[in-house]
Amino acid sequence: ALAWAARAEGIPAYIVVPRTAPHCKQAAIRTYGATLVPCEPSDKSRAETAARVVQETGGVMVHPNQELAVIAGQGTIALEVLEEAPKVNAVVVPVGGGGMIAGIAVAIKALRPDVKVFGAEPCNADDCYQSKVRGELTPNLHPPDTIADAVKTSIGPNTWPIIRDWVDDVLTVSEEEIKQATRLVWERMKLLIEPTAGVGVAAVLSEQFQAVPRDVENVCIVLCGGNVDLSSLTWLTDRPG
Amino acid sequence: ALAWAARAEGIPAYIVVPRTAPHCKQAAIRTYGATLVPCEPSDKSRAETAARVVQETGGVMVHPNQELAVIAGQGTIALEVLEEAPKVNAVVVPVGGGGMIAGIAVAIKALRPDVKVFGAEPCNADDCYQSKVRGELTPNLHPPDTIADAVKTSIGPNTWPIIRDWVDDVLTVSEEEIKQATRLVWERMKLLIEPTAGVGVAAVLSEQFQAVPRDVENVCIVLCGGNVDLSSLTWLTDRPG
Repeated sequence: ALAWAARAEGIPAYIVVPRTAPHCKQAAIRTYGATLVPCEPSDKSRAETAARVVQETGGVMVHPNQELAVIAGQGTIALEVLEEAPKVNAVVVPVGGGGMIAGIAVAIKALRPDVKVFGAEPCNADDCYQSKVRGELTPNLHPPDTIADAVKTSIGPNTWPIIRDWVDDVLTVSEEEIKQATRLVWERMKLLIEPTAGVGVAAVLSEQFQAVPRDVENVCIVLCGGNVDLSSLTWLTDRPG
Repeated sequence: ALAWAARAEGIPAYIVVPRTAPHCKQAAIRTYGATLVPCEPSDKSRAETAARVVQETGGVMVHPNQELAVIAGQGTIALEVLEEAPKVNAVVVPVGGGGMIAGIAVAIKALRPDVKVFGAEPCNADDCYQSKVRGELTPNLHPPDTIADAVKTSIGPNTWPIIRDWVDDVLTVSEEEIKQATRLVWERMKLLIEPTAGVGVAAVLSEQFQAVPRDVENVCIVLCGGNVDLSSLTWLTDRPG
């Protein structure tokens, strides 16, 4: 999205991307005319690489999830949900850096405080869940191992206070649950979501979600992305038809 | 669709299906409560098996593409297209038995004769193209070898006269073009179409389509199915990312 916006405005963009990101995502960034700067798949490497790029280019840092303008922009998802589905009782959002859920939570709780906001995380990257349980920002200790690559990153100083105060609960799901949910959406809805979007679907299908009160009837799951590397679908072919 | 309708009306349904049909399609038929009767992947075996089932069960034969009620029902696709996209100049429809394109052609030419109707076929199953060229019904001589499994069947006595009189032209595409088009729709539109639906997309992307007059600006491609066996996507992993 940033590469696209930069091109539309005629501004050069340098996008720091973990070298493990889906090839299709990297290709899309290049197609939109931005310069791709690879980093290692850790928050530390990403921060260091971004700082170096800012220094070398004199550019403005736009953090993908801690930048307040990004958080506010993602809050417009909630405006669309409330407009298109006014009967919604809960919104479920996968959590990586937490920008999307923070923006959505601010907008939902300002306009419709009766609507629940749930985070969804892989068990293997449950920093948001751990932070809520402990009441303090608790980033992932190690680079997480999950198929949901877009939520490997941890929530941060700007998203944590919003999540702490405005997100009702965080649900965690296993890798197997993520794969099954992603596959279900592909086969039944014919929508090619990425596994990260499947995290939200898996959360709603999980046993934990049964504990949500019965009056939560209409649930909106934010299918937050469709960057699927079709060449690396080996996890699919391992399963029975 | 037939299995679904039969269950809704409480009528037993026996569906004759080539044993090579996608597993997910077979599973869906069973899920809808119909009895699945396997046959060999040829028009001959299908006809013989269906005749036997009719004799044994006293059922009513509903041919998937030569049945006039089915053709008329598929014509409602055209009504939806004209309602949702009144500026359409052409409609492109993959052709197997020809029921879908026959229904669509009848409706389009009755309501909006200025709108072109194009058929799209794999080169490896080009009976409709051959029939149009020769001016007489020319079924596929052998069971065709194409990834677009839903158009392996040939047009027949009820669909041929309609196609002959009301379909403007038939475009043919290679297996490689079908795969590329299918993959393009998956990656860019995030829609999990089956390769048969990719036949129509491939036709519009093909060089042949460049010959279509320039005033054909708004083209509607009917994405006619999403029965994809996710476990058998080896043709995808053979390609570069």
